Amino acid sequence: GGKGSEAPRERRPPVSVAAVLPAGGSGERLGGCTPKQFCALLGRPLVSYTVRAMERISWISDIVVVVSPENVEVMKSIIKKYGHKRTTVAEGGMTRHRSIFNGLKKIAESHLLSSPLQKPEVVIIHDAVRPFVEEDILFKVVMAAKEHGAAGAICPLVSTVIASSADGCLDHSLDRAKYRASEMPQAFLFDIIHQAYHQCSDYDLDYGTECLHLALKYNKTNAKLIEGPPDLWKVTYKRDLYAADSLIKDNISQQVCVLTNMKEDAVQVGFLLHETLKSHVKLVKAISTSLCKNESHLQNILLGQCYNFICINDNLSNFQETHQLVEILENTNASLLYSVVLISVYLDFFENVSFISAMQRFTKFAKEVEKKNILLYGLSIHYQKDNLKLQETMDSAAALIMALIRDRNPAYVGQLLVA
Amino acid sequence: GGKGSEAPRERRPPVSVAAVLPAGGSGERLGGCTPKQFCALLGRPLVSYTVRAMERISWISDIVVVVSPENVEVMKSIIKKYGHKRTTVAEGGMTRHRSIFNGLKKIAESHLLSSPLQKPEVVIIHDAVRPFVEEDILFKVVMAAKEHGAAGAICPLVSTVIASSADGCLDHSLDRAKYRASEMPQAFLFDIIHQAYHQCSDYDLDYGTECLHLALKYNKTNAKLIEGPPDLWKVTYKRDLYAADSLIKDNISQQVCVLTNMKEDAVQVGFLLHETLKSHVKLVKAISTSLCKNESHLQNILLGQCYNFICINDNLSNFQETHQLVEILENTNASLLYSVVLISVYLDFFENVSFISAMQRFTKFAKEVEKKNILLYGLSIHYQKDNLKLQETMDSAAALIMALIRDRNPAYVGQLLVA
Ligand SMILES: [Mg+2]
Ligand SMILES: [Mg+2]
Repeated sequence: GGKGSEAPRERRPPVSVAAVLPAGGSGERLGGCTPKQFCALLGRPLVSYTVRAMERISWISDIVVVVSPENVEVMKSIIKKYGHKRTTVAEGGMTRHRSIFNGLKKIAESHLLSSPLQKPEVVIIHDAVRPFVEEDILFKVVMAAKEHGAAGAICPLVSTVIASSADGCLDHSLDRAKYRASEMPQAFLFDIIHQAYHQCSDYDLDYGTECLHLALKYNKTNAKLIEGPPDLWKVTYKRDLYAADSLIKDNISQQVCVLTNMKEDAVQVGFLLHETLKSHVKLVKAISTSLCKNESHLQNILLGQCYNFICINDNLSNFQETHQLVEILENTNASLLYSVVLISVYLDFFENVSFISAMQRFTKFAKEVEKKNILLYGLSIHYQKDNLKLQETMDSAAALIMALIRDRNPAYVGQLLVA
Repeated sequence: GGKGSEAPRERRPPVSVAAVLPAGGSGERLGGCTPKQFCALLGRPLVSYTVRAMERISWISDIVVVVSPENVEVMKSIIKKYGHKRTTVAEGGMTRHRSIFNGLKKIAESHLLSSPLQKPEVVIIHDAVRPFVEEDILFKVVMAAKEHGAAGAICPLVSTVIASSADGCLDHSLDRAKYRASEMPQAFLFDIIHQAYHQCSDYDLDYGTECLHLALKYNKTNAKLIEGPPDLWKVTYKRDLYAADSLIKDNISQQVCVLTNMKEDAVQVGFLLHETLKSHVKLVKAISTSLCKNESHLQNILLGQCYNFICINDNLSNFQETHQLVEILENTNASLLYSVVLISVYLDFFENVSFISAMQRFTKFAKEVEKKNILLYGLSIHYQKDNLKLQETMDSAAALIMALIRDRNPAYVGQLLVA
């Protein structure tokens, strides 16, 4: 049908592609016990973010995650819990190269055995600890691998590289302009890298770190080098987990959806909030009729990866609109990959005589829905006819909303803030 | 007197030491307009953190910050605003090496002119965008410079380093085990590095990046290389600002001071809070008499760099204890370098009939003290005789307190949370 025509920015390489994700590192540099690929970011293991980055690209047919033997079951449960498709687990070896080789063997053997995994023309190799990989660089390395046999992303060196003498003194320093840092993703014609691993020495397998080097040494393939964006960096230290956490929060704070009912005050507050938030977020969608009639509209918003909702409630005692929205979020599994922030807005909450019992009900409800990865916060807005004062209140409300959305802090779940 | 005896961990190198901080970078990699050294972290420019890291070390006699001509006044105002001592500004050149050279010349000439700057035996060179430098590594590079003439911190390479051919393909990759990343701080006998800069070519000054290289090339000095901690890394990309922000917040969330009056309920809540928080923070100090009698005790706590206070209030209508503490914080300039978090605790806030006006007064007061970099939050604790339920409430209070302290988010200033 007409909907089947490809969007202009969807590019598909004219080759079949699979990906191997080495995830066997021990995480010693972090100083903690959990290997970094299994560290939780916003409650989800880092490796799941990287798998997702691959999975969402339709032209990558299979993803093989290689983990150390003791983590095979952990990885399988991660794949199951987060519903990752086209993803299988392979058991790693003692070193990075042996693990990647195992991943390649799994793909090659599975072809011979005619299992669901198809031997691809091109294989991408990408670290499980580089979660921010985008389609653009993947497409580029795959196309370059098709032409050159091998390709890899590179970045400028941040520090000068030096060689030391035996006594720990400077021997020489390298000219920074002539060298680059070799990053991931890399891509290879499958047969080239598979053969290189078959031919390479035990010394290479045990001490080597660079796949491009193997393709050069054993296949005389000079890999094409492609400048990558800075977000390809490898999560290595504790500070990198902090950076990744903030970048993920940035990514999912871009869109906010405002929902109001048709009552006059709520409509006005919804409209003003919508206008005020426009200067803070990229996209604000508003629905101003009842939720049940708009469930398909809401489904589209959820498909567009909106993880932030503001719901203006009419009635303090039952907050019906919030309940309805929670139900829809639950039914659509909207909070599977990321927590959903839901800010429930009330006009003049504290002026209601029964506010204490309403507050208790709200807090209790919020603790319940937190189990489903929905972070529910309350916001009381003082509604006043004076337009100037009302706009001041809206600015204050927008600041609170942006902070709640940006921080996604479970500690404040069920609290009622005042704008 | 007896107090003059040195604490065991205070080590002073047996040489005079000054420091040059190049801060002239343009910050292109960040993609923003503000050069990274002037980016605000928790409201204060990054360069001020680095200056402070140097300034607190008593054996560094002078700190020269080299900035581009257009930022000289900005840098002077930063030094003034944050009260940095022993710190002067030098005007930078077109490149990193020319800027460092200018810093060294400022020190050398100022010696001839017998200005306050003394020509030191050893000079430290350290980037303004590496704020987490500790005394230990500074001591080590200075001692090694005294012995070897030059020394610098190094770190393991995170990525493999490769050389590309003219057509953008892999030429060869370096064995990661044989190379290191050259980081900062570095230290030199002043005359060695000063002479190297005088002798080096315009090409070196325009295209070089490595001070250790100049000492080797022009003085045949093989710098001693010293493994540094990972926190020496250079704030280069946006993600590095996020990481630095989180690490700074970690550093100032370690200590909490709990203040209570002598009323029975407040004392019990203070005691329980103190016990509960112990498992979250390194050090909790409690004062359970009136503030005015303990001002000198409090001064010591402030000197110990405690930036987090919990104040249990007796009376809803005047929150006298909080007012007193704010006054002391203001008088001691406690919030000059870091925001001070002050959590004002009330027992059963909402059960008081006049809570709405109390809330308004509290919010207004909080907005006032925010101007002085004091972040005031309210916390209502439901006081109940049932010990089990009270402990549950305390756990909830501790979680809220830790979140407020860790986030230091100005958006929630003046809000009243409920445990
Ligand atoms: Mg790794
Ligand atoms: Mg720099």
